[in-house]
Amino acid sequence: MLKKSMLDLHRVDVEQYKAVEKIPVAVVLDDVRSEMNVGSVLRTADAFVINQVVMCGITGKPPSHEIHKTALGAEDSVVWSYHASALEAVEQLREQGYTICSIEQVHGSVSLEQFTIEPGKKYALVFGNEVKGVSQAVVDASDCCIEIPQHGTKHSLNIACSAAIVMWHFFNALKR
Amino acid sequence: MLKKSMLDLHRVDVEQYKAVEKIPVAVVLDDVRSEMNVGSVLRTADAFVINQVVMCGITGKPPSHEIHKTALGAEDSVVWSYHASALEAVEQLREQGYTICSIEQVHGSVSLEQFTIEPGKKYALVFGNEVKGVSQAVVDASDCCIEIPQHGTKHSLNIACSAAIVMWHFFNALKR
Repeated sequence: MLKKSMLDLHRVDVEQYKAVEKIPVAVVLDDVRSEMNVGSVLRTADAFVINQVVMCGITGKPPSHEIHKTALGAEDSVVWSYHASALEAVEQLREQGYTICSIEQVHGSVSLEQFTIEPGKKYALVFGNEVKGVSQAVVDASDCCIEIPQHGTKHSLNIACSAAIVMWHFFNALKR
Repeated sequence: MLKKSMLDLHRVDVEQYKAVEKIPVAVVLDDVRSEMNVGSVLRTADAFVINQVVMCGITGKPPSHEIHKTALGAEDSVVWSYHASALEAVEQLREQGYTICSIEQVHGSVSLEQFTIEPGKKYALVFGNEVKGVSQAVVDASDCCIEIPQHGTKHSLNIACSAAIVMWHFFNALKR
């Protein structure tokens, strides 16, 4: 089992990537504090052809040395935008036909593996601050909340890891 | 949809965690350079009740300030060990009945969503260095290689994100 070379991987370049069909999923970052996490989300969003990443509030945005260190150039391939207000961002996405799903541990949340991903629908997945999570106002403005089931001692996962899990889950359901 | 409080989350403490049934999955880290990544893997391993994490080669191990910053205490709940040689570590795990699966992009790898997880089997999942991936020697010593399908411009995901995706995938298949 020989490891694949860069050539074997057939990766597209930034120009080719723009033409690649994306999955109908937007990722919204609500007050994410760490720019390393933002960069990591962009790198994963590139891999799973997420159609846009929306940075909100205190969330850092490119150009940023810290974001670049973990995005490794994905800030140039992934479509991104910045909104001061996460609440306004999700309202705009809703007007564009997105179903708003906050990834948060709330009363009434749906466990990720039980969430029904419907082909043809567009989803905006909201991830929150490292400590506070998604703000209650944005939770209240969401159509649903999705929770990653966890059995450990910690009360949450790292936000870049949570985002990777959920993006993978949606990519796997929608891409093929 | 009110956010759950710490009490609502019913998290177990470190002592209670030891008694919780784990999934038959070991995570092996082969020359992972960043201690932040090691800590993040431990935090995810805690959430998904991974039965052990084996740090190998240059991979950092607790006690470490950097690991603690991202593990947030999961270094105390998750069972871990250190081996200088990843090759010896996987051979030991094989003797203990584990099927060795390297997470690597190789010729002949199985795409994650197509990999059949068999109940009753034990799996050792090997993740490699941030730049070089899993060493060819460990790939050669593996029973199979699992690849996370990716459609972007980058040739890989962050190792903590890859590990989160694969741990989630196995947890979801084995836990319920």
